[in-house]
Amino acid sequence: MSDEKEKPDEVSNDSSVPKAVVSRLSLYLRELQHLVRDGSETTSSTQLGKLLGFTDAQVRKDLAYFGQFGYPGIGYRCSELIEAIKKILGTNQPWSLAIVGLGNLGRALMGYRGFSQQGFQIVAAFDVDPAKIGKSVEGIPVHHLDDVVRIAKEHAIRLAIIAVPGPAAQKVADALVAAGIDGILNFAPVTLNLPKQVRTVGVDLAIELEQLSFAVVNQLPKP
Amino acid sequence: MSDEKEKPDEVSNDSSVPKAVVSRLSLYLRELQHLVRDGSETTSSTQLGKLLGFTDAQVRKDLAYFGQFGYPGIGYRCSELIEAIKKILGTNQPWSLAIVGLGNLGRALMGYRGFSQQGFQIVAAFDVDPAKIGKSVEGIPVHHLDDVVRIAKEHAIRLAIIAVPGPAAQKVADALVAAGIDGILNFAPVTLNLPKQVRTVGVDLAIELEQLSFAVVNQLPKP
Repeated sequence: MSDEKEKPDEVSNDSSVPKAVVSRLSLYLRELQHLVRDGSETTSSTQLGKLLGFTDAQVRKDLAYFGQFGYPGIGYRCSELIEAIKKILGTNQPWSLAIVGLGNLGRALMGYRGFSQQGFQIVAAFDVDPAKIGKSVEGIPVHHLDDVVRIAKEHAIRLAIIAVPGPAAQKVADALVAAGIDGILNFAPVTLNLPKQVRTVGVDLAIELEQLSFAVVNQLPKP
Repeated sequence: MSDEKEKPDEVSNDSSVPKAVVSRLSLYLRELQHLVRDGSETTSSTQLGKLLGFTDAQVRKDLAYFGQFGYPGIGYRCSELIEAIKKILGTNQPWSLAIVGLGNLGRALMGYRGFSQQGFQIVAAFDVDPAKIGKSVEGIPVHHLDDVVRIAKEHAIRLAIIAVPGPAAQKVADALVAAGIDGILNFAPVTLNLPKQVRTVGVDLAIELEQLSFAVVNQLPKP
C-alpha cells in the first residue's frame, strides 16, 4: 500500500495501542501457529478473520498498529508474521518464569504445556510449606520464598505467577518486587499494590464464565 | 440525556455488541462490587474509568450499548448498575455448573471461590478414573462421565467446564452436548467441534502471559 508509515520489519512500541488489540495479537499468533503446523505457508486477513470470527478489516486494522506485514497478491507469509507478532509480544525471546504457591492451582499451572509452547519456561517454584520445600514438581525444584532474591538472580527470572490465596498475595508480591521481578501474573483475587515499574496482569476466571453465560443468554452466533 | 433510546431498565440483547465490550462489563461489575463493599452508593464514569485505566468516555460508550444507566447530578447508583450488568451478563440468575476432569486444574477450579461469588455453583464433578468416582472433592460428589445425562437433568446443569487433557476434550464435549449442556468453558488446548446452539469460551492461559510480556517489553503505563 502506498500510504504505509512503517517498514515491514519495524515494530511500533506505541503504548497507546488498545489492550483489546494486544490480546487479539495472541489469537492471531495461535491461528498462524496452527496454520503452519497444518502446512500453510501463506494466509490472508480474510482467512485469519474467518478462523476467529472477525472481519478482514479488523485483522488489517489491528496489525496496522504495528507495521505493514502483507504482500500484494500473496497476503501474509505465516512464519514471517509469527516472528513479527512474537517480537511485538516480547516472546521472540524466551522468558524464565517463577511460580509462587503450590496448591492445586500452582501445580496445575506447572503442568500447563501452553506456557512452554509459547516460550515461557517455569524454572523455579516457591512456597512456604516446609513439607513442599526441597522437593520437585514436574521436574522443577521447590524453594522457600525466603530464597527468592538469590534464585531469581541465579536464573535471571523476570516474570512470576502468583497462585497463593488472596490474603497472602501482597506479601508474596512484595518479595517478588524485592527480587527484581518485572512482571506478575496474578491469580489471587486481590488488586496488588506494586511500584510503577512492575507490570501486572490479573486473571479472574469468573470473567470467562460471565462471557459464557452472556453468550448463552443472548444466543450469540458462534465465534 | 435527551437523546436516550432505551429506558433505564431495558437491556439490549443486540448480538452485534463487540466481545471486548462484554468483557469490560465484567470489569465494571467487579469494581462496582468493590465500591459497594467499601460503602459507596454512587459512582461516575470518571471514577469507574480511573479505577480501571479507561477514559470516562469509554465507560459511557460501553454502557450505552445496553441502555441509559446514569442520573444527572448523581452518576450511577452502584447497586442498580450492578443488577443491570448482571442481567446483561445473565448472572442475575444462579447457574448450576458441572466440571469434567479432576486433575490438578479441575481440583483447583473446584476450590476457586470467585465462581460462586458471581453466581456460578459447581454442583457436580465428572471423571472416568474409578479411583475418583463416588468420592467428593470440596464437598461436591464425583460421578462417572457415563452418568452425565442423568446428573445434568437432575441438577438442571446448563454450563460445564472441561478440564481434561487435549486428546480427551472432544469426547467429553460430545457427552456434554448429549446431556443438553448450553455452554462450555474449555481449558483444554484444542478447538472443540460443537453444534451451533452450544456456546463455548476457550481459556488460553498463555495469552495472559503474552499480555504481561508485552507490557514488560513495551514498558506500558500501569492499567
